[in-house]
Amino acid sequence: MSDTTPPAYPIDEMNRVKRRHDRGFYDHGTVHRLLDSAMLCHVAYVVDGQPYCTPTLFWRERSTLYWHGSSASRMLRNQSAGQPACLTVTHFDSIVLARCGFNHSADYRSVMAFGHAALVEDPAEKAAALVAMVDRFFPGRTATLRQSTAQEIKATSVVAMQIERASAKIRAKGVADDEEDYELPVYAERLPIHTVIGAPEPCPRLLDGVARPENLALYQPGDLLEEALRRAHARTYPG
Amino acid sequence: MSDTTPPAYPIDEMNRVKRRHDRGFYDHGTVHRLLDSAMLCHVAYVVDGQPYCTPTLFWRERSTLYWHGSSASRMLRNQSAGQPACLTVTHFDSIVLARCGFNHSADYRSVMAFGHAALVEDPAEKAAALVAMVDRFFPGRTATLRQSTAQEIKATSVVAMQIERASAKIRAKGVADDEEDYELPVYAERLPIHTVIGAPEPCPRLLDGVARPENLALYQPGDLLEEALRRAHARTYPG
Repeated sequence: MSDTTPPAYPIDEMNRVKRRHDRGFYDHGTVHRLLDSAMLCHVAYVVDGQPYCTPTLFWRERSTLYWHGSSASRMLRNQSAGQPACLTVTHFDSIVLARCGFNHSADYRSVMAFGHAALVEDPAEKAAALVAMVDRFFPGRTATLRQSTAQEIKATSVVAMQIERASAKIRAKGVADDEEDYELPVYAERLPIHTVIGAPEPCPRLLDGVARPENLALYQPGDLLEEALRRAHARTYPG
Repeated sequence: MSDTTPPAYPIDEMNRVKRRHDRGFYDHGTVHRLLDSAMLCHVAYVVDGQPYCTPTLFWRERSTLYWHGSSASRMLRNQSAGQPACLTVTHFDSIVLARCGFNHSADYRSVMAFGHAALVEDPAEKAAALVAMVDRFFPGRTATLRQSTAQEIKATSVVAMQIERASAKIRAKGVADDEEDYELPVYAERLPIHTVIGAPEPCPRLLDGVARPENLALYQPGDLLEEALRRAHARTYPG
């Protein structure tokens, strides 16, 4: 028994899960685990009242989310002053076929994170983020690469957003029909969806003797992508 | 040779692919094919200046996108009058490990579709959409189910959005290093990512003799989800 409450994000009208509130979670553990199991996110932002939904690669460091972009992009041009944004990650786990149309559904695990997104301008923070952008996924890889040029660093933009509010939403129950419908001769199933790693395709122009390095062993064909990403995150940010 | 241009979405400041414009496509064929290969989308919308990015299931019929929600949801409550929205679909195809940090990338195929989202209120259009919501994915399935009750129809909301502008963005080239970097003894690869169908899990409470129906044969374990979805779409909306 413990008298401490696990750390959680504050809940208000912005992030409270309203529809199916029983599926909502706000604790850091649940929210961060779902974020750290992903590489692809979708970011919503507003330019002149028009919403945009942009896919991008991202990662979490403590309660800050970082993502990649170019200073030429529509999104970043408008976020340098700290624009409100919503970064969403969705793990699509199954299609649920029920005995009536209404109970057709999906199993999923998603996170919506809210905050103000801004370009990383501090040179030291940007340098660290450019390393993390590779090493968070492939621990130790940056040290093995050709070093970035000043021009490349300049041409790469990194966006940072402190998570101000967040919610996770999880459905993980498969078929859930109305009790009386179970007596009907209708077929129902949960159809699982898996996002997996395929066979690596080494660059055809590798020099002789250059082998797949040990730090890529985290990524094995057939593995669930989310598990590899979680392992890599735990190695880069232990504890 | 033909003197006709394939039908395409109009291009302006909203949907022009600015960064990496060589990756942008606007023709109906490319945009629709990527949409019809997906079931999960992310929708961005704005409430009181705050952007929200919501995952949901959707489908396309001609140049209209439909998605599912509840009248209780934050998103729909605010879109009934026709709110600007951006619906995005992303197929994440690979992680690209290059010889320098700057050329690390991903292969992907995405679509951003812009329009004004509104609740489907016309009873006949809504009835047709509730059938399509199941049958677009599982052709003919609705006829085999317990019929929807008036209460269920009332409790289900459908949102429709005519595509006013759209763009597809595609990267599909794997490792693309700077020419001089190919001489470095650095390992590089394309790491494919596949979203596949798992083994169906029949409901444990099926009545004796109820078998998986023929219309689910479109979804076989090991198949790419996107191919099954495209097959189902072609069967539901031929031509």
